[in-house]
Amino acid sequence: MSDIKKYIEANKDRFINELIELLKIPSVSADPAYTQDVLNTADVVKDRLEKAGCDLVEICDTPGYPIVYGEKIIDEKLPTILVYGHYDVQPADPLELWDSPAFEPVIKKTELHPEGAIFARGACDDKGQMYMHVKAMEYMTTTGNLPCNVKFMIEGEEEVGSESLGWFVKNHHEKLANDIILISDTGMIANDIPSVTTGLRGLSYVEVEITGPNRDLHSGLYGGAVANPINILTKMIASLHDENNKITIPGFYDKVIELSDEERSEMAKAPFKKEGYLKALDIEDVYGETGYSTMERGSIRPTLDVNGIWGGYTGEGAKTVIASQAFAKISMRLVPDQDPKEITQLFYDHFISIAPLGTRVKVTPHHGGEAAVTPIDSIGYKAASMAYEKTFGKKPIPVRSGGSIPIVAMFEKELGLKTILMGFGLDSDAIHSPNEHYGLFNFYKGIETIPYFFSYYSKLVKS
Amino acid sequence: MSDIKKYIEANKDRFINELIELLKIPSVSADPAYTQDVLNTADVVKDRLEKAGCDLVEICDTPGYPIVYGEKIIDEKLPTILVYGHYDVQPADPLELWDSPAFEPVIKKTELHPEGAIFARGACDDKGQMYMHVKAMEYMTTTGNLPCNVKFMIEGEEEVGSESLGWFVKNHHEKLANDIILISDTGMIANDIPSVTTGLRGLSYVEVEITGPNRDLHSGLYGGAVANPINILTKMIASLHDENNKITIPGFYDKVIELSDEERSEMAKAPFKKEGYLKALDIEDVYGETGYSTMERGSIRPTLDVNGIWGGYTGEGAKTVIASQAFAKISMRLVPDQDPKEITQLFYDHFISIAPLGTRVKVTPHHGGEAAVTPIDSIGYKAASMAYEKTFGKKPIPVRSGGSIPIVAMFEKELGLKTILMGFGLDSDAIHSPNEHYGLFNFYKGIETIPYFFSYYSKLVKS
Repeated sequence: MSDIKKYIEANKDRFINELIELLKIPSVSADPAYTQDVLNTADVVKDRLEKAGCDLVEICDTPGYPIVYGEKIIDEKLPTILVYGHYDVQPADPLELWDSPAFEPVIKKTELHPEGAIFARGACDDKGQMYMHVKAMEYMTTTGNLPCNVKFMIEGEEEVGSESLGWFVKNHHEKLANDIILISDTGMIANDIPSVTTGLRGLSYVEVEITGPNRDLHSGLYGGAVANPINILTKMIASLHDENNKITIPGFYDKVIELSDEERSEMAKAPFKKEGYLKALDIEDVYGETGYSTMERGSIRPTLDVNGIWGGYTGEGAKTVIASQAFAKISMRLVPDQDPKEITQLFYDHFISIAPLGTRVKVTPHHGGEAAVTPIDSIGYKAASMAYEKTFGKKPIPVRSGGSIPIVAMFEKELGLKTILMGFGLDSDAIHSPNEHYGLFNFYKGIETIPYFFSYYSKLVKS
Repeated sequence: MSDIKKYIEANKDRFINELIELLKIPSVSADPAYTQDVLNTADVVKDRLEKAGCDLVEICDTPGYPIVYGEKIIDEKLPTILVYGHYDVQPADPLELWDSPAFEPVIKKTELHPEGAIFARGACDDKGQMYMHVKAMEYMTTTGNLPCNVKFMIEGEEEVGSESLGWFVKNHHEKLANDIILISDTGMIANDIPSVTTGLRGLSYVEVEITGPNRDLHSGLYGGAVANPINILTKMIASLHDENNKITIPGFYDKVIELSDEERSEMAKAPFKKEGYLKALDIEDVYGETGYSTMERGSIRPTLDVNGIWGGYTGEGAKTVIASQAFAKISMRLVPDQDPKEITQLFYDHFISIAPLGTRVKVTPHHGGEAAVTPIDSIGYKAASMAYEKTFGKKPIPVRSGGSIPIVAMFEKELGLKTILMGFGLDSDAIHSPNEHYGLFNFYKGIETIPYFFSYYSKLVKS
């Protein structure tokens, strides 16, 4: 595979021009005005997968936008890698904030991208990153370097919730059978600090309602004599954390998998400049669970945050009222192996139990989602690490993200498979925002790194 | 004074007809459309005071509505009682909820008033109660039973904040010099359970604002890693009460005057049916400071209540946001000798001190007011108690009210004088509401009781 660099060098203009053609199609899944464009994009992706060497490519109908499925099975006995990506994009508005039109891609140099970056909606998320896999596939099939079977599953509804993908995966377990899922739809720390996302947090989200007296009361006459629902709510919420900022709900941590020291020390290699972090948020200090770093608190540890609170008089001036009711929205970020339904139930039981007499409590669950994680001692992670080390000259840092990508948990649940998140975007790429862009360095580095992953993964599985 | 009952009996129809004439004038101070009516009412009050035997009656100009001042000084060496009342009334709306027009007084029997009650805006608050003093004055001057000097100060802005009264009192210390102030503008427990209001709570009202990060953050990425202003606010507010529901602000209780056992046991004689109280509010139990009864918690003890709270996402469904700011309105009801300014400062200092690093706190004071209390061992209270005992056949119960009447504290501050609150209204009189009324029993009983107060007070001062 020593020729990969040469292959990219020889074809780089064609690669970028092909990507530009793809970016020109406004495949905005959220807006019905673009329906035909979304469908056209699926056709283009099908064509490109065929040209890249897939033996079978299909436009698979779903209740929504189609899923482009492609495969090249070279030997049933070899492992199979399933590449996931999406061909739909976020809406481009506010249009007036774009320096150049969202669907007329241009290449410009930036401070972080001295070699140039391509500016267009979907440049990074996810057409650019998805297309790296198509071009890596082209390289591997053209040069005889494909070491295993490949399947592609490129969807068109990622930006609107991947509903049809869930339906598709549920109904095609056999078709999609594979050994590991590979996705490039996340980011890395910096172009000289490669990283791999190894975990995503789950979510339990509830709304609570405290009712005290049956009507608003005059605080002069009743103040101090009856339970004030707002005071009680603040007391109940405050009691959900102890003095070390640990969550006090009984059983909350029972299923939390503590990270190995090795993984924690790997994670700790990610650069974190506290000063810059504080300055960016304009805060004096960080705050969180005792015994964990800021990066750990925001990624590998479960949390409980109030997302909204309201009750009583909130207008101008003063009103001496004791409100009949008080409300809050509370979300808990979860880590493996916490189950969102179980955590919601634990919250429910505990919250009701701590309400004092004189108040009634209602807890309404909103949506939830499971956490997902890729162990760094897994073959998939090791192969990714070796691939990055080969192309970047240094090992990637495993990064646990605080957010959620529900499809990763869905793949694990439906197919029983781990996902490797080899993202090559940067935080500064402005995905979902005006002037989205993707560095040419990142685009080509992705194409270079992916075949190494295929190669190392196949070797590690065999050995 | 054995003839007082006979005097009332002989003149009762005239008394009530005079009151009806007064009630017909819509002296709504809040609505400029009634300006002339308010002024006309002042003229009528002046005329009635003259007819009742005052030697000097003046319409005193103020920056707002005039104050009717009257006096009868029979001997400089005798004590002087200053009667305060107000001739303005609340707006009558919503008009459609009145069974008869607000300014066309009618007498009807009710369950609580089998002898009849007069229905009109101002019937109880305060024209009816104020006019009892005018008629008691008439009796005393006509029959030679006036035992001391009298001053009347009847204002026209009570329902809009008594601003001109403050100005007037500040500028007429000498004119208003007296020994005790007498007001009938409150209520009693029941027609067979007379009571005297001996205390009013003061108030400190603040708005607090907690700022964390400089913008709303994604709770997935930042949850657990930075101080969430809403969580922090709930924690700070919750910490303001300890496990016994005592307020934890250092110094908060330093100036609280504990009631004597005698006063507490007197107060405890007021009927309180917990079952009915709970049922009326639809709550399972009361809640408050350990060691005090519900009535005490709502009257003789200082409290801290959140009157409003808000922050973050409060719309439908779920949004995983960490808000940049959170807000609350907090009021503290105060008791003697807590000073509202001092308490506001104590709150300010404490609240700022408990904010964790990573948050900024702003505390904005709204209005405040001082508590006022009339000791039950004072001559004034004893005279009132004896007067009620004479006319009701039983001692009145001293009642501490949880609310505030700012003018009482103002009189104490400006004139250095205590006030006796001989209110004859009932809770059911619907003051400030449609169908306000005042029992004829109460009206006549007030006229009967007032001269006894004058008599006993004069005797007790002399002895």
